Amino acid sequence: MAELITVDDPDDPRLRDYTGLTDVELRRRREPAEGLFIAEGEKVIRRAGQAGYPMRSMLLSAKWVDTMRDIIDEVTAPVYAVSPELAERVTGYHVHRGALASMARKPLPTVDEVLRTARRVAVMEAVNDHTNIGAIFRSAAALGMDAVLLSPDCADPLYRRSVKVSMGAVFSVPYARLDGWPRALDSVRKAGFRLLALTPDERAVPMDEAAPHRLERVALMLGAEGAGLSGRALDAADTWVRIPMAHGVDSLNVGAAAAVAFYAVTTGRPES
Amino acid sequence: MAELITVDDPDDPRLRDYTGLTDVELRRRREPAEGLFIAEGEKVIRRAGQAGYPMRSMLLSAKWVDTMRDIIDEVTAPVYAVSPELAERVTGYHVHRGALASMARKPLPTVDEVLRTARRVAVMEAVNDHTNIGAIFRSAAALGMDAVLLSPDCADPLYRRSVKVSMGAVFSVPYARLDGWPRALDSVRKAGFRLLALTPDERAVPMDEAAPHRLERVALMLGAEGAGLSGRALDAADTWVRIPMAHGVDSLNVGAAAAVAFYAVTTGRPES
Repeated sequence: MAELITVDDPDDPRLRDYTGLTDVELRRRREPAEGLFIAEGEKVIRRAGQAGYPMRSMLLSAKWVDTMRDIIDEVTAPVYAVSPELAERVTGYHVHRGALASMARKPLPTVDEVLRTARRVAVMEAVNDHTNIGAIFRSAAALGMDAVLLSPDCADPLYRRSVKVSMGAVFSVPYARLDGWPRALDSVRKAGFRLLALTPDERAVPMDEAAPHRLERVALMLGAEGAGLSGRALDAADTWVRIPMAHGVDSLNVGAAAAVAFYAVTTGRPES
Repeated sequence: MAELITVDDPDDPRLRDYTGLTDVELRRRREPAEGLFIAEGEKVIRRAGQAGYPMRSMLLSAKWVDTMRDIIDEVTAPVYAVSPELAERVTGYHVHRGALASMARKPLPTVDEVLRTARRVAVMEAVNDHTNIGAIFRSAAALGMDAVLLSPDCADPLYRRSVKVSMGAVFSVPYARLDGWPRALDSVRKAGFRLLALTPDERAVPMDEAAPHRLERVALMLGAEGAGLSGRALDAADTWVRIPMAHGVDSLNVGAAAAVAFYAVTTGRPES
């Protein structure tokens, strides 16, 4: 059972995990370096725990103690009870969800480990918007993608906003970082995956004709909003696929495009 | 050719169309009542013009005059050149995109008019988030839905944020308001449409089995984020369909779910 510790000094060093949460640049450096990430709100904190991330500490406003009682009873990490004003002083924002937990990261699996049992993998290049990363993980989880591989310059799926937007899906879909881009895609191909690059390019095969749900192993490559996949990434792919567009529209947003593509590679359909 | 008028008084009554743009409640009342909507940024202003919406006026900061020169030359509406500071005083926010246009609304088509030529229609119930409305229109346009029908309590697709998120797709996909909900769905059925209700309910038919791309005419019913379709709407449907979910995830976000469902009803696929 955790200790419940009332803290009323915003400079208390025990609250250091929670300082300056609105400073994206600061947190982006600090969190991986210090091996932590922040889970926000009851649901996400529970999911992080269920996924086996060890808790370093929790920060609660008093009225959340009852709701979180079972977690407080279970964990051994310290639980700091603070006023909403003090939470705001420390974090830099009004903590609507009333509960924050600092969780310890786990070592990421290697690419080989991730690919060993997977059949449908999303490969993201340079997706560095935390909202988009979270949205893509949420769709990947819901639509049955087995894993996600990230190019070295993708944003951190465990950043607070990504975790929140994903509704905790970043905990349930295994992911790994590719080392060397796009060179590392060779190892994905060697593991038996067909590399499909999603692009609006008209020379690409329409998704319905490509029928990727029939392939044994698929790695679906996605680029960032706006830029899309780089030329180097497109060159490294086996096949270009596109979602047919109507009404002269340029493109879907990256979240919608990812969802459609995940559906197309995971879901069989009777003859048309 | 439009007059280019320099204005330096924030209380100039000619700027009234642009006052208080950040006051959602105020604008939500005023814009339909006064028959206007606001297009923001070069691309969206051009698309509104191409879609045949008459311009009432334009508000530009000086450095945007060159970019918008061809539009200024074309329209007869007055164009107000203002400083960025004055634009912010009038609108209530810093106008990053440098150009705003007040456009005149056109009468909405009737439901019958919209249904006459359509084969794939999205029907939204109580989607009152402007971002979601915009995202759904963008996907509907890109994925080839022919029209959108809105329950009486859906938000306004021409609200500034909806227009922006849709990238102007609210101008290219015809839409109409249903009068009486869910009673008005009868008229949709009578027009030859099969009413498919999208729901996570396990009793629903998986989308791939339902194979809605084979149906002659489909009206795909979507509810709001969180709540989903109401019981009354579900009762009024012909068939419940669901997107199969993996990993124990509750649901996709409404934008992702809509995109997948639109793809499923618009896109044929070879035999699996």
